[in-house]
Amino acid sequence: MKGAVLFGTRDIRYVEREDPKIIEPTDAIIRMASTCVCGSDLWPYRGIEPVAEPTPMGHEYCGIVEEVGSAVRAIRPGQFVVGSFFASDNTCPICKAGYQSRCVHAVPVGALGAQAPWLRVPLADGTLVATPELPPNDLIPSLLAASDVLGTGWFGADAAAAGPAKTVVIVGDGAVGLCAVLAARQMGAERIVLMSRHEDRQRLGREFGATDIVTERGDEGVARIKDMTDGLGAHSVVEAVGTQESMMQAIRSTRPGGHVGFVGITFGVELPALELFFAEIHLLGGPAPVRRFLPELIDLIWNRRINPGKVFDLTLPLDQVAEGYRAMDERRAIKSLLVP
Amino acid sequence: MKGAVLFGTRDIRYVEREDPKIIEPTDAIIRMASTCVCGSDLWPYRGIEPVAEPTPMGHEYCGIVEEVGSAVRAIRPGQFVVGSFFASDNTCPICKAGYQSRCVHAVPVGALGAQAPWLRVPLADGTLVATPELPPNDLIPSLLAASDVLGTGWFGADAAAAGPAKTVVIVGDGAVGLCAVLAARQMGAERIVLMSRHEDRQRLGREFGATDIVTERGDEGVARIKDMTDGLGAHSVVEAVGTQESMMQAIRSTRPGGHVGFVGITFGVELPALELFFAEIHLLGGPAPVRRFLPELIDLIWNRRINPGKVFDLTLPLDQVAEGYRAMDERRAIKSLLVP
Repeated sequence: MKGAVLFGTRDIRYVEREDPKIIEPTDAIIRMASTCVCGSDLWPYRGIEPVAEPTPMGHEYCGIVEEVGSAVRAIRPGQFVVGSFFASDNTCPICKAGYQSRCVHAVPVGALGAQAPWLRVPLADGTLVATPELPPNDLIPSLLAASDVLGTGWFGADAAAAGPAKTVVIVGDGAVGLCAVLAARQMGAERIVLMSRHEDRQRLGREFGATDIVTERGDEGVARIKDMTDGLGAHSVVEAVGTQESMMQAIRSTRPGGHVGFVGITFGVELPALELFFAEIHLLGGPAPVRRFLPELIDLIWNRRINPGKVFDLTLPLDQVAEGYRAMDERRAIKSLLVP
Repeated sequence: MKGAVLFGTRDIRYVEREDPKIIEPTDAIIRMASTCVCGSDLWPYRGIEPVAEPTPMGHEYCGIVEEVGSAVRAIRPGQFVVGSFFASDNTCPICKAGYQSRCVHAVPVGALGAQAPWLRVPLADGTLVATPELPPNDLIPSLLAASDVLGTGWFGADAAAAGPAKTVVIVGDGAVGLCAVLAARQMGAERIVLMSRHEDRQRLGREFGATDIVTERGDEGVARIKDMTDGLGAHSVVEAVGTQESMMQAIRSTRPGGHVGFVGITFGVELPALELFFAEIHLLGGPAPVRRFLPELIDLIWNRRINPGKVFDLTLPLDQVAEGYRAMDERRAIKSLLVP
């Protein structure tokens, strides 16, 4: 088969790769219905996190099970499945506590290269969740979104303890931030403030449930949030960028006793612990344990209660993956969907 | 009256101060039953946090109400009361959410100098909690402990989500760490590991409920905790020191999805956010909202279910306050009780 391989900075190619096959008896092979480009794929693409050798790319996936290993029990060929970017056994104490992305046997799917027509998924029984039946085509983008971008935004809102009677602020208007808006809405938040300077993203944010838009950033952004909350700060803040400025903005926008959920990857960020001490906020972040939320997310999508697939504003054939990266890198697209 | 005043590094004197009087109608004046020296008092005493001018000291207090301002309703002269080191109105949204140390009208009691025979307590109705009747003398050290050291250890254990079926690790064997052991025990923790190298503190830790003692620190300490928890780390870790090493030790001893409660004041500590991201732990710290816990703590003490007063291993007349500081500074005492 062919698949997306990153050769160096901004050099991604659709080239011949080995066909995936069952290696462990707990593996499954899926035929990709669709895959996509993640904001985090742009780190190596831009050379911020350089690759040492040609590297298969992609970790978001959904599709039909083609084959399973001899130890796979729950997942069967022919099922339509969604998985997360970390394969997990879903039985270890960490999984049972709901942190499947840190499963003691976790395997990063990114290393297996999901931007391809076929994918080997390790720990299939623990990792994959099947839809009730084969989905209609129009649901596939949303089911794909559940694999990472929705699951990550959802975790951000959950970690920020979004809920009824709460003011939830979302720092970052990328696809994850927009999905956090959608999540906060589903969790019943009273007021949802999206911090965004881009009109197209503001529009989608409002459609997903944002009640307010704030265009200021940094200290000015913090001051606006304080103004909107009787000087107290928000109950819940989702950080979906990962820079020093955005993390401090999130922390300073939160009221004492409030919660920050951070899902932007925080390369090089240092948090001043004394400020954190006197801020007296709850802080939780990390790679989202998407598997925890998948059954609920699939159910919401299946019943057309949410439509997170709208974050895909560019659809391309998989062999045009390079354009999918370029469009996101140049901010011409929020998120690129790739169809084999 | 006389009271403790810090004149400079290691120069604390029992000298004439102005008698406290009602200033705001919400004030109360209490006659001190006993007061004490806090680990945090040692920061300015040692010159790490230098004082610009002679500064009254002390923020832990309990005693009998002598007089109240015209707006005080719930608190009456003659009551025995315990308060926290932050006066709070207990009615603002932050207080109602249980974060009274960050009350929008919070007043630091330390600035008023509780190491004295009398003390003005602002926001008396919100701040002070009365005992059912005048306490017998032997309960006074424990009631005083509730004012800060017990309340702070309790908050650490609460922030670390200590509870049944959990392994709780306490980093730091000072009076606060020891009280966190006691708190974890009361919260029903299954296993309570005190990290301590001092025999007298280990002994009191065991008496308060520690099931295990670990003497290693830093990476070796982390490795020991991993060994004891099937390689996963503890569910709950209380950090009661406040240094870079102890914070990192606490974070690295915690399993993914676990909780760190940090109550040591983290001067100069920087937390690497990327490590925090992949650690995927809950983090909450700050000045303890002792007021939230006071009714429960007073009840436990009153019914002799806990005896936190045991952290005081040195009792001195208040006019020997300087020796109280010296003994703690030189680690001859865990905590010094001062009786006017």
